[in-house]
Amino acid sequence: MDLTLYFFPGACSRVTMTALEATGVTYRDQLVNVRTDEQKTPGYRRVNPKGKVPALAIDGRIMTENAAILVFLDRQFPQAGLLPRSTDPVTDIAPLTDLLWCSSTLHPAMRQIRAPDKYTAGDPADVMADGMRKFAAECTLIADGVDGRWWYGDRWSIVDVYLFWLCNVAEKGGFPLSDYPAIVDHAARVRQLAPLQRALERERAGAERLALTGIQY
Amino acid sequence: MDLTLYFFPGACSRVTMTALEATGVTYRDQLVNVRTDEQKTPGYRRVNPKGKVPALAIDGRIMTENAAILVFLDRQFPQAGLLPRSTDPVTDIAPLTDLLWCSSTLHPAMRQIRAPDKYTAGDPADVMADGMRKFAAECTLIADGVDGRWWYGDRWSIVDVYLFWLCNVAEKGGFPLSDYPAIVDHAARVRQLAPLQRALERERAGAERLALTGIQY
Repeated sequence: MDLTLYFFPGACSRVTMTALEATGVTYRDQLVNVRTDEQKTPGYRRVNPKGKVPALAIDGRIMTENAAILVFLDRQFPQAGLLPRSTDPVTDIAPLTDLLWCSSTLHPAMRQIRAPDKYTAGDPADVMADGMRKFAAECTLIADGVDGRWWYGDRWSIVDVYLFWLCNVAEKGGFPLSDYPAIVDHAARVRQLAPLQRALERERAGAERLALTGIQY
Repeated sequence: MDLTLYFFPGACSRVTMTALEATGVTYRDQLVNVRTDEQKTPGYRRVNPKGKVPALAIDGRIMTENAAILVFLDRQFPQAGLLPRSTDPVTDIAPLTDLLWCSSTLHPAMRQIRAPDKYTAGDPADVMADGMRKFAAECTLIADGVDGRWWYGDRWSIVDVYLFWLCNVAEKGGFPLSDYPAIVDHAARVRQLAPLQRALERERAGAERLALTGIQY
């Protein structure tokens, strides 16, 4: 299987890259410079018509939507344990439910905090304040789920990395994450995961190749 | 299997209800009055801590996130053909990719159009304008995919209903859907689907029980 991940350091492609690192598979990475809106150029739209990262090329066929890619990787590389399985059909749907929560609720709320100017040509302050309120409401659920444990209990999963990434970026946008000690503790544990460390190193290498500076890892 | 769908007429629970109708399964429905913020009350949060509809109770266990519920129903009732299957793993992930696109990209953009006041305590006009721009960009992809066909070609799927619902609500918010004749034609075909018709009838019955008026079907 020939794999290429289209990514940008610090974007949610970090979660996808961590998943790839956890599988141990060989893959190429291709930095798409979202600082210069490369993701919206005709050249990149020929790769991904949606004009976003991440995207994963699999033997020349493109796959989009971070959560769908994560489910695909989990199916292809079950030994990596990216997501828990269950023979009970209700329990078995839980990881998908959680990925959807990350992508369709937490991510938009975080985006209102981190990039409120992407929601309005007017004053972004109110949009950001609303994002803070929404994200705080969800953080209560996150804190309950990671209090002294991984999201699914005993073993880390890619949902832990996704939640970490979301909270980390919200904090960079000014969200008071220290109000949630359980999440801060969880973040410290996620940072130590070897696949995430390898992804961060690969992000750095990509940024250096393009001489991109000032990216927060 | 004992099933109860928590819904509100016109909300995205319409897609879930249409899926349930397509399966032919017997289920109860429970109207949650989002007009009075019933979804945020302690009583409903005991059902669904996320405070949203739809939610599906399965033998007393709650399932959330519309797209996850749709995948669950497809797995439980494959004869309904809610989503296409494939033995090719890349093709097989496509319906999940599309559901994620609906829930994490189209739905937030539509919400900026239909309920811009949910994004800011300030002037919502700029938020709505930004939603219009974002939704229009995605409509090009939708129009390409439903031009004289169903989203997956020969047979309708629940993704067609989801796309219909998103475009329909955006139009109610003032989005110029008539700029996309292929989508208007597709909407007319979706409206004729028997499971959607039964869902609409059930929404009406629920609204009448609560004497809710002025709901647009």
